[in-house]
Amino acid sequence: MLVIMKNDATGEQVQRVIEEITKMGYRGVPMPGAQRTAVCIVGNKGAVEESLLLPLSGVKELIPVTKPYKLVSRETHPQSTVITIGDVKIGGGNKPVIMAGPCAIENEKQAITTAEIVKQYGATVFRGGAFKPRTSPYSFQGLGEEGLKILAKVREETGLLTITEATDHVNLEDVEKYADIIQIGARNMQNYSLLKRAGETRKPVLLKRGFAATIDELLMSAEYIMAGGNHQVILCERGIRTFSDNIRNTLDISAIPSIKESSHLPVMVDPSHAAGRRDYVIPLSKGAIAVGADGLLIEVHNDPVHALSDGIQSLFPEQFARLMEEIKYIYR
Amino acid sequence: MLVIMKNDATGEQVQRVIEEITKMGYRGVPMPGAQRTAVCIVGNKGAVEESLLLPLSGVKELIPVTKPYKLVSRETHPQSTVITIGDVKIGGGNKPVIMAGPCAIENEKQAITTAEIVKQYGATVFRGGAFKPRTSPYSFQGLGEEGLKILAKVREETGLLTITEATDHVNLEDVEKYADIIQIGARNMQNYSLLKRAGETRKPVLLKRGFAATIDELLMSAEYIMAGGNHQVILCERGIRTFSDNIRNTLDISAIPSIKESSHLPVMVDPSHAAGRRDYVIPLSKGAIAVGADGLLIEVHNDPVHALSDGIQSLFPEQFARLMEEIKYIYR
Amino acid sequence: MLVIMKNDATGEQVQRVIEEITKMGYRGVPMPGAQRTAVCIVGNKGAVEESLLLPLSGVKELIPVTKPYKLVSRETHPQSTVITIGDVKIGGGNKPVIMAGPCAIENEKQAITTAEIVKQYGATVFRGGAFKPRTSPYSFQGLGEEGLKILAKVREETGLLTITEATDHVNLEDVEKYADIIQIGARNMQNYSLLKRAGETRKPVLLKRGFAATIDELLMSAEYIMAGGNHQVILCERGIRTFSDNIRNTLDISAIPSIKESSHLPVMVDPSHAAGRRDYVIPLSKGAIAVGADGLLIEVHNDPVHALSDGIQSLFPEQFARLMEEIKYIYR
Amino acid sequence: MLVIMKNDATGEQVQRVIEEITKMGYRGVPMPGAQRTAVCIVGNKGAVEESLLLPLSGVKELIPVTKPYKLVSRETHPQSTVITIGDVKIGGGNKPVIMAGPCAIENEKQAITTAEIVKQYGATVFRGGAFKPRTSPYSFQGLGEEGLKILAKVREETGLLTITEATDHVNLEDVEKYADIIQIGARNMQNYSLLKRAGETRKPVLLKRGFAATIDELLMSAEYIMAGGNHQVILCERGIRTFSDNIRNTLDISAIPSIKESSHLPVMVDPSHAAGRRDYVIPLSKGAIAVGADGLLIEVHNDPVHALSDGIQSLFPEQFARLMEEIKYIYR
Repeated sequence: MLVIMKNDATGEQVQRVIEEITKMGYRGVPMPGAQRTAVCIVGNKGAVEESLLLPLSGVKELIPVTKPYKLVSRETHPQSTVITIGDVKIGGGNKPVIMAGPCAIENEKQAITTAEIVKQYGATVFRGGAFKPRTSPYSFQGLGEEGLKILAKVREETGLLTITEATDHVNLEDVEKYADIIQIGARNMQNYSLLKRAGETRKPVLLKRGFAATIDELLMSAEYIMAGGNHQVILCERGIRTFSDNIRNTLDISAIPSIKESSHLPVMVDPSHAAGRRDYVIPLSKGAIAVGADGLLIEVHNDPVHALSDGIQSLFPEQFARLMEEIKYIYR
Repeated sequence: MLVIMKNDATGEQVQRVIEEITKMGYRGVPMPGAQRTAVCIVGNKGAVEESLLLPLSGVKELIPVTKPYKLVSRETHPQSTVITIGDVKIGGGNKPVIMAGPCAIENEKQAITTAEIVKQYGATVFRGGAFKPRTSPYSFQGLGEEGLKILAKVREETGLLTITEATDHVNLEDVEKYADIIQIGARNMQNYSLLKRAGETRKPVLLKRGFAATIDELLMSAEYIMAGGNHQVILCERGIRTFSDNIRNTLDISAIPSIKESSHLPVMVDPSHAAGRRDYVIPLSKGAIAVGADGLLIEVHNDPVHALSDGIQSLFPEQFARLMEEIKYIYR
Repeated sequence: MLVIMKNDATGEQVQRVIEEITKMGYRGVPMPGAQRTAVCIVGNKGAVEESLLLPLSGVKELIPVTKPYKLVSRETHPQSTVITIGDVKIGGGNKPVIMAGPCAIENEKQAITTAEIVKQYGATVFRGGAFKPRTSPYSFQGLGEEGLKILAKVREETGLLTITEATDHVNLEDVEKYADIIQIGARNMQNYSLLKRAGETRKPVLLKRGFAATIDELLMSAEYIMAGGNHQVILCERGIRTFSDNIRNTLDISAIPSIKESSHLPVMVDPSHAAGRRDYVIPLSKGAIAVGADGLLIEVHNDPVHALSDGIQSLFPEQFARLMEEIKYIYR
Repeated sequence: MLVIMKNDATGEQVQRVIEEITKMGYRGVPMPGAQRTAVCIVGNKGAVEESLLLPLSGVKELIPVTKPYKLVSRETHPQSTVITIGDVKIGGGNKPVIMAGPCAIENEKQAITTAEIVKQYGATVFRGGAFKPRTSPYSFQGLGEEGLKILAKVREETGLLTITEATDHVNLEDVEKYADIIQIGARNMQNYSLLKRAGETRKPVLLKRGFAATIDELLMSAEYIMAGGNHQVILCERGIRTFSDNIRNTLDISAIPSIKESSHLPVMVDPSHAAGRRDYVIPLSKGAIAVGADGLLIEVHNDPVHALSDGIQSLFPEQFARLMEEIKYIYR
């Protein structure tokens, strides 16, 4: 629910509205605008008693929005968004798009060899990290711009589209230049400064759900990008942090129908980072497609045993081939 | 790892072993037996340094077991167990078994009508609660033995097998008499007294994972039943409790490959209790089958709008029909 | 909110009310009573729109209850309950009560020695397990009734009150006979059959919060005991299961003010099971007292190095002495 | 454990080491350096079998480090670090430091009035946000540089030290200029680009634990700052995300002894953001001090009812006065 205040409403009147909302057990968040202030009611799960708010002085009208986001919302945009890049169409019931490649780009040979493999079995987008956010400052942090150049070469030689992660303003500019899709990683999902910058680019952005983010928080982060003017946002579930210790992160497949219910944006699944080990990637991928994901982001390496990072969760070429075969049956 | 002590090992010697294990950063749990004591090493994730333990006085031998369970373990029993009840075979790569029916048995008409519906579309086991564990003492607690009699009638009239939940020693005895499969619910997964009693029965037991239980804890609870002499145990994932608020419980599909890796027991999925709302049941069911579940436990009601409990998550007959159609394509 | 239906309300009318509640985004739970049915509205976080329900046919009145529990609620019983057992008073701002002793009673000497130690430093209740719920069927399960007899002897020789855990109907009867306070453990918090039985006893019951239970669920479980006629319930926070791996269970000290806000019942803290290691027990104990806990349940062993279970988290006598000294300053 | 490879070790040899580590059930992370490669063994909880690794060709030596961080580690720096800023000393057993003030700086009058209040009752650092990371793009985002200027004025007029949050490279430069302590918020705990930049400044940095970060991850993030050359890092626990819904975030007081065990850095507690409501702030603050926190970061507002953000969790002046009085007794 949005309480729209009159143009000439005073700060006291806004405050009075917020107090009334607080009394109801919800939270009133003032959203000052150019013309007038709106107060967003947050924390309610259903209908709000309008008759308590409407008579307050300074209140112009009440606009029911059950969610604090607007641009990403299916309510305001009932049709599913399809992101079209070249020949590839993501979302809206199109065939699941497979983005595959190594965790990190290590050198030209590894990148191109892997790209050719994944293309052969049906991937249409090549993934590969140049700027790697690593938990340890002592871990391999990626090849940087050199990696991006290799990415561009992969694109040129194979015709595959490319996706790679940006982690700050500076490298986002480079990624924007070299790649087709800009990835924002789970750890930066609430890096609002980066999200605002991503809102200014005109390339599609794939936004990963933080491993402890609710669906609403993910959608709010997408709202930052869309509010900046970039409407080409692809969401991505990649596992959440739970008490369960049988897997690195619990893949939350319920995120797919939930996001599709609340938003018109396409949603993909990254089973590799959830699993943390390659033998779980195949069953989780099949589950993701069955539940309705618009695509998969999968780590494949031409030689996983010698990968510089995340080798343990990268598929062998023959595993990827088998996976592509199996999901064909699931998706009709 | 199991440290087997000599027959005449003293308490001091056992204690010395435990201290050494503690120094390694693990935990040593003494398991006194009739003949000798064993010390189970808990908390290690991989190999344990044997050379530190073997020379200690009183130590007979070291038996490597990476997990604290034995009877449920795939290591000790590499072949997948198939539970056969009448014509129904659960596990071992057999066609997924569908157990369907209302949350609670409300009356004979509701039970039989629903049973006929689910049978028509391919279910082979009828589910329906007679003893309901409810969070509130003021909620409907089930029909009790009367419900079991209706269950028996369903069996007689439709030929379907039946499953229903037991919540204590007393009603387990009744359930054993009337039903084909005894269900132990998530809230009782660590009710060891009930598990021991379930170990004495000769009917198959379906054991649900507690909503905050790790896979190892689930397997340990199954070990209680098997240690009691009942080897017909079916496991069931039904959603875990996480921070995520888009669904009642997060369905952990990674539990399927995890359990199958560690144990030879069949594992089913209950999407209805995870979802808490019927529109999520279909996508989650498809995901569960795609990932390799041995079957589904689904709430279906002939008239969900008038159900006495859990109506919101029960499928309408036509939804169940559609679901059965769709999973056929996923399972080959 | 409770919707009270008229005596002669039909099932159809009840159903109509539930549907209306569902439309609001909440859940309507029918609570059939001897005279009439009430429908409890669950899932709302604040005020409910009354004007939509009151006009429905069959509705008698609306009773605002924000919580699904009644007897445990501070709303219905504003004064804090004080549980008095002999000279010991628990709750209501009385001096924190310290219950201390070993995890398990191993033999008479260990029990009495430990009891004398904890008494010397200020504990007034002796704790010690006779029936141990263990994750593994192969772990030491306690001395059983023999342990209870030792407990009675401790009481006789030291004058301390005693508390010990019951895990099923059968041993609850024994515990009732030998001990002053009956403990129901975290794993049995939603063992409703056991809770109902605990409602029939006239001894005080200490109910531990399940490691994945919300405060509301804990209070609902207490409601089961009180609804059975036993109003002497003490609650106990013992750590919750979270993603955090620095401690066995995250001690949730916010549970203390939360429970005190919602309920009149006293609330204690068990830092030993949360910590899982003795060096954390002292700081957590101090935190618990500072935040307002009505007492502590602490594991102390006369010789922790040789304890048969949980030795790693049991305090040495001198640590317990120091702890008792330090919390004196915190509690005024 | 760190496996140091010889200068001339080949990639094959490094790979062989990693495979051996994988076989042990751990993970080997290659850390290529200027001179040589080291392989960090991750995932082990205790001792690692050295005799399996040492004989491998290319291996120079094994250095036991139980944790993947070094500079923050108490092992490498046994004495507690004391951060000294003017007269204020944080850590090392010094009197707890209280940092207090409003969530956001709204205007000069509000800031100075609040600063005088918190100073009067014993706070020595003034907190107040100028750049606010908000979940919604439509929420009040802070006054920006204007807020920093007010902060500088507060410093000038009251003599209090100041702390405020930086959210990206650009505003970090400003914060560095105007404030005494740079705060990095929970959502940016793994914004490695920002952490690296914070490593270049010479002002102390207060790093908040992400609401889903483990202690090890928090320490790794601090390692980023220290590895950059800035050794003045203060850690801060501010609540973690769990299933529990009685409070916004569960305050994890066990983080205090855990961090103090693993690291020499001081650790503070922010009870305001954990609580999300002012009546819980006082008990949680007392618990934090009792458990050994080096200080508190508390939201106080001269007029919380009219606060532009987080008013609900800001203390009234008289509540802050009472809190300061009460914690005096707890800290000796």
